[in-house]
Amino acid sequence: MGHNNKETDKKNLKLTDLSSVGEFGFIEHIKKNVKKYNESTMVGIGDDSAVIKNSNMYSLISTDMLVEGVHFDLSYFPLKHLGYKSVVSNISDICAMNGICKQITVSVAVSNRFKLETLDDLYDGINLACKRYKVDLVGGDTTSSQKGLIISVTAVGIVDNKKICQRSGAKNNDLIIVSGKLGLAYLGLQVLEREKQVFLVNPNSKPDLEPYKELVERQLKPEPRTDLIDFLEKNSIIPTSMIDISDGLSSEIIHICNSSGKGCILYSDKIFKDQTLLKVCEEFNLDPISVIMSGGEDYEIMFTINPNDYKKIENSDLDLYVIGHITNDKNTYLDLGNGSKAEIKSLGWKSF
Amino acid sequence: MGHNNKETDKKNLKLTDLSSVGEFGFIEHIKKNVKKYNESTMVGIGDDSAVIKNSNMYSLISTDMLVEGVHFDLSYFPLKHLGYKSVVSNISDICAMNGICKQITVSVAVSNRFKLETLDDLYDGINLACKRYKVDLVGGDTTSSQKGLIISVTAVGIVDNKKICQRSGAKNNDLIIVSGKLGLAYLGLQVLEREKQVFLVNPNSKPDLEPYKELVERQLKPEPRTDLIDFLEKNSIIPTSMIDISDGLSSEIIHICNSSGKGCILYSDKIFKDQTLLKVCEEFNLDPISVIMSGGEDYEIMFTINPNDYKKIENSDLDLYVIGHITNDKNTYLDLGNGSKAEIKSLGWKSF
Repeated sequence: MGHNNKETDKKNLKLTDLSSVGEFGFIEHIKKNVKKYNESTMVGIGDDSAVIKNSNMYSLISTDMLVEGVHFDLSYFPLKHLGYKSVVSNISDICAMNGICKQITVSVAVSNRFKLETLDDLYDGINLACKRYKVDLVGGDTTSSQKGLIISVTAVGIVDNKKICQRSGAKNNDLIIVSGKLGLAYLGLQVLEREKQVFLVNPNSKPDLEPYKELVERQLKPEPRTDLIDFLEKNSIIPTSMIDISDGLSSEIIHICNSSGKGCILYSDKIFKDQTLLKVCEEFNLDPISVIMSGGEDYEIMFTINPNDYKKIENSDLDLYVIGHITNDKNTYLDLGNGSKAEIKSLGWKSF
Repeated sequence: MGHNNKETDKKNLKLTDLSSVGEFGFIEHIKKNVKKYNESTMVGIGDDSAVIKNSNMYSLISTDMLVEGVHFDLSYFPLKHLGYKSVVSNISDICAMNGICKQITVSVAVSNRFKLETLDDLYDGINLACKRYKVDLVGGDTTSSQKGLIISVTAVGIVDNKKICQRSGAKNNDLIIVSGKLGLAYLGLQVLEREKQVFLVNPNSKPDLEPYKELVERQLKPEPRTDLIDFLEKNSIIPTSMIDISDGLSSEIIHICNSSGKGCILYSDKIFKDQTLLKVCEEFNLDPISVIMSGGEDYEIMFTINPNDYKKIENSDLDLYVIGHITNDKNTYLDLGNGSKAEIKSLGWKSF
């Protein structure tokens, strides 16, 4: 009998907790043993999407797994929104390679407390995102789970092989640009968590979410920045590197700097701080810059461009913000505007 | 607050149990609301893989989700074998379209009882399958689960657009062929389940699995029939339809007949019955034909060919068995060899 697993369990005291390695550490650990067998594999583990060579148009593959109780709480996250968001987060990964998402597969595992009609809500959201972003649902798997709802989405996209943007292409003096308001999704989550606690104490409470509408919407119904990808195409801009901001600005800029072998200076006063963000940060006694640096799920895009391309973006209708530049020395700094600077550390999403 | 889900829960009495719909019913239900937005989507939900047009070589996408306690039991399923099998089942889906698997992504959710070293066992098996079948692991996601281990694998393959085999192309009088021994993996599972029960009663028992070695190996370490795909290519055979036998012969032949709008006659005495299968069926008091028709996880391939192609396969070194033929009337029959015939019903794997 294969009691190997039981034997491993007995030795657990000597073993390594996944939490001590972290998600990024675990990915690095896996990468060490991964070999490449096919010439068509252009980019493997470690970017927003994998890149596969076909003709001059390359395929992009990205995948995400969402687990109830880890990534979402169904007591305040409607299933329709969850379906929508699970598609959006994958479209965003394809955008982050400068590509266009064309197909997705969705696998779902559900415990027996779920009924057909509740799953219909989930698929309504999935289909709505597919319609909005012209993406085809082409496959998947459905099965039961021991506990809760698990959703795994894989997105397939295309990109012109001359326009692929990886994390690794940033050059010295390149401008660092973000596509919109950051930190709102994280604050939306704080509001929803607070209202959940109120509801648990007093189920008759009727929360007024109106003042927090934008924040809650950013958390429950984010949109991928396909408009940015269109804009870059129309204006013949090819960013030197690109990433989507799903884990917070800190960990994303560190990904770009590490992958590119560079450093950066970001300017605290150049990072757009929305009025609602400032107000709600005060209410929750949170530091706005910390929220922006560490809060996740914005699904905005950060990219770097050659300074010569600045004239192509300065009059854009899009909400683009130049927040700093790439440096040759490998330090990642945040200029706090008072003559002092802080080292940026990765405080992104912890999966374990 | 989005208490929609709670409201749906209250109405549960009127709602539909997923088990009453079944996996295939649920897939049909989802398909109804799925629209197509991209010309590149050649085949969507409902075959072994999706088909995406690039150049003359098309991409194939297939995905599977495996859940602890539903699809596998870690008390007798070593993690290394589980990793291997999770890749194999997806390679098999790509084979079933007459394609070659080139890349996979693997997403894993684990509860906190798993340690880094135990996950290493899983990835050892994944990497071994990748090496054996020249497949690149190009991405994935890792996260925690509320309970148990969940693995979601997506495979990407290629196929010449003139050689794609779907389930839907079977023609009247086409020969129905299977690629090898069926039912062994199911019997392997029965042996392992029995030994688990013995072990639970007497943990000091030392089971002798030697007589069941082949069965247990077929369950724990199945292999995809990439050799068959090579053989078809070398001998210029393009099957008219194709499917992999993961859920049992009954449900697979019904998939082919329904998708093709045809029927079939299978001959009980033409279906290869291995000596070990017969012996162990007697020991377990099981009917060999029922085991073959309903037992899953063989990962053999069933395909149909024009009768004119028979001469190309009759002297093959591979273990190919002609087990029946396609008929124009839509009945699916099994000829029992004693002058009687039985209607084939789908008794495949139940996910819910």
